Amino acid sequence: MKLEKSPLAPAAFPSLPDIAGVRFATAQAGIKYKGRTDVLLAEFDAGTTVAGVFTRSKTASAPVLRCRKHLAGGRVRALVVNSGNSNAFTGRRGEASVDAILKAVAEAVGCSEGEVFSASTGVIGEPLPHGRIIDVMAGLKSGLGAASWEDAARAIMTTDTFPKGATATADIGGVKVTVNGFVKGSGMIAPDMATMLGYIVTDADIPAPVLQALLSPAADASFNAITVDSDTSTSDTVMLFATAKAGNPQPQGVDDPKIADFKRALDAVCLDLAHQVVRDGEGATKFVSIAVTGAADDGAAKRIGLVIANSPLVKTAIAGEDANWGRIVAAVGKAGEEADRDKLAIRIGGVQVTDGGMRVEGYDEAPVAAHMKGQDIAIEVDVGVGSGSATVWTCDLTHGYISINADYRS
Amino acid sequence: MKLEKSPLAPAAFPSLPDIAGVRFATAQAGIKYKGRTDVLLAEFDAGTTVAGVFTRSKTASAPVLRCRKHLAGGRVRALVVNSGNSNAFTGRRGEASVDAILKAVAEAVGCSEGEVFSASTGVIGEPLPHGRIIDVMAGLKSGLGAASWEDAARAIMTTDTFPKGATATADIGGVKVTVNGFVKGSGMIAPDMATMLGYIVTDADIPAPVLQALLSPAADASFNAITVDSDTSTSDTVMLFATAKAGNPQPQGVDDPKIADFKRALDAVCLDLAHQVVRDGEGATKFVSIAVTGAADDGAAKRIGLVIANSPLVKTAIAGEDANWGRIVAAVGKAGEEADRDKLAIRIGGVQVTDGGMRVEGYDEAPVAAHMKGQDIAIEVDVGVGSGSATVWTCDLTHGYISINADYRS
Repeated sequence: MKLEKSPLAPAAFPSLPDIAGVRFATAQAGIKYKGRTDVLLAEFDAGTTVAGVFTRSKTASAPVLRCRKHLAGGRVRALVVNSGNSNAFTGRRGEASVDAILKAVAEAVGCSEGEVFSASTGVIGEPLPHGRIIDVMAGLKSGLGAASWEDAARAIMTTDTFPKGATATADIGGVKVTVNGFVKGSGMIAPDMATMLGYIVTDADIPAPVLQALLSPAADASFNAITVDSDTSTSDTVMLFATAKAGNPQPQGVDDPKIADFKRALDAVCLDLAHQVVRDGEGATKFVSIAVTGAADDGAAKRIGLVIANSPLVKTAIAGEDANWGRIVAAVGKAGEEADRDKLAIRIGGVQVTDGGMRVEGYDEAPVAAHMKGQDIAIEVDVGVGSGSATVWTCDLTHGYISINADYRS
Repeated sequence: MKLEKSPLAPAAFPSLPDIAGVRFATAQAGIKYKGRTDVLLAEFDAGTTVAGVFTRSKTASAPVLRCRKHLAGGRVRALVVNSGNSNAFTGRRGEASVDAILKAVAEAVGCSEGEVFSASTGVIGEPLPHGRIIDVMAGLKSGLGAASWEDAARAIMTTDTFPKGATATADIGGVKVTVNGFVKGSGMIAPDMATMLGYIVTDADIPAPVLQALLSPAADASFNAITVDSDTSTSDTVMLFATAKAGNPQPQGVDDPKIADFKRALDAVCLDLAHQVVRDGEGATKFVSIAVTGAADDGAAKRIGLVIANSPLVKTAIAGEDANWGRIVAAVGKAGEEADRDKLAIRIGGVQVTDGGMRVEGYDEAPVAAHMKGQDIAIEVDVGVGSGSATVWTCDLTHGYISINADYRS
């Protein structure tokens, strides 16, 4: 099925500067899709460090299980990603596919298999025809450097309607470094389990343990704070690669003041990419931010925010441009977290809607109704019990989501 | 908006026998709907005992809070229910509405306010125009006995497309007793918090504590084991009334062997009513049962079942008649409960689909695809770690759900 580009898509793929120490190649292996690239190979120079966060699914895919193992080494020379088949729930056959792919990449790049990371995304439970990937390996190797960041982002897309990238620069000890990232994801997007596939590359020189300590909280506040449909993928992966080409002084730890500006840049790239995933949410017509305050603690605020964000009734009301704040009240009520019904305060588009456990006196729905007609919907909820806060992001639930998902595999 | 009758509706409302000690009246109060009844009054003879289970929402409605208080008395003389407005999140004004309604009912029926139970269902957060209910009270009182069980079931409907009733008989100590019930519910249906509005009446003579001890587990295995959209109402209420007219010997406790057959009948009525709610799930075209076995315990099995039942991707696949069992695997994976990926066994329509952590060898999708085209879908999942089991029920997620809920309040 041909999907229309999301109405929430950015005007264009951003301009991403080169990063020394990484080269891309893409190929059409014909794993599932016809007439488009579906394999990405990235080669990293020796000395590149790596961090990653992965799905917490109990049915994680074979590549995810292997990546977790390789991460202990902290070093990376190659990344290979295919779209069209997730190699998840494929048993021993799936593990054998990973073995075969890693071996072929290690031979092509000239490294150990432990320095190769892989990912697969697409349909679950079908055997991965890994021979098709191996068949294009020689071409990928010889083509390294020919593919752009946008080409890389396109090769890993599944139901995505636009390629997603982001960039930022930072200063580490007087040296300018760059952070580029790209991501795929549109459906089966739910938080607290890492997320879809996301790859971030920097030329900074950062030891692997510091890299990991930076990535985990960045993912928590971005990829783990979005939801399209509450469904968590078996393949969720976000990785951060540092090629060490910038020549910056190495930070000694995550609390080293030198790394503060890099942390800001990394957080910004992660948040930008996460928002693009929401903007490409299957069938999305509205981008929704939900800011929760006054919760018992930040974790409770995030859980309440996600319950609101995952409520089909809230999401369909937004699709219908209906300021149906009663459904927000019901979602807060079902979250199971502490909340004071009689202090609950809701704002939509900056307009106070409830106060003191009921609708504000003389409530005028006109400005709220006007806000609901826009593409960016802002919901603020104070639950009145403490000082915990969190913001999460989601999209609306539309006929488009049903059309895409009642059809996807067939 | 005019809703088509659910394709999963029973052929007709069942024939419910009279129950001595209860009389119904309905009226058109014009609370929200035009041209249909929207208030139900039930009068019970003195000596009727009562039990109830209510929403666990933190934003429970004013009537729910009051019912919980009155339940301590264990006695009931009247029930009043309106549709069109839930009187939830209406603050002090909502409590005043309950006060005014209970006072009017107590005066009409000639009882104390503590013997009156009320419920309201419909839009959240709008002040309830309780004067309209009080205005029809005299007519309701004089009309008591004129309304049938089906009339009663119709008066409490909101987005329901058909009235829902069930009946069973049981033997208590050689005396035949009857159990009748009716229920409303179609959207904002999620389990583990009691459920929508459901009322069950028996002529049996059962003390209130025994009645409560029977109702809670019956609701857990029926109303609390269904989900339409994972959204929990602020008004969920199930009540059980015993008019004591049958003249059976009183059971001494819930373990009294005399009550065993009644327990069976009550469980059957609850399950029948709960299934009818699923069959009227907003936009539903398929009735889906999900039986989970091999879990760490029964609670874990139920949680896994509900995660599958609430997965938008599973529900849209069923809507598309797609045997996309990979989405069931992903749902099991995200449930957070113990599961053995390599022992996970899935059956659809009785056909084994996976075994040993992968698709069965020589899998033939034809019989499974044929099963998916039917109205009743049976999914069985063994997660391979223990002996816990549970069954839950849901419906598919269709364009109809989006249409109903992007429009409901406007």
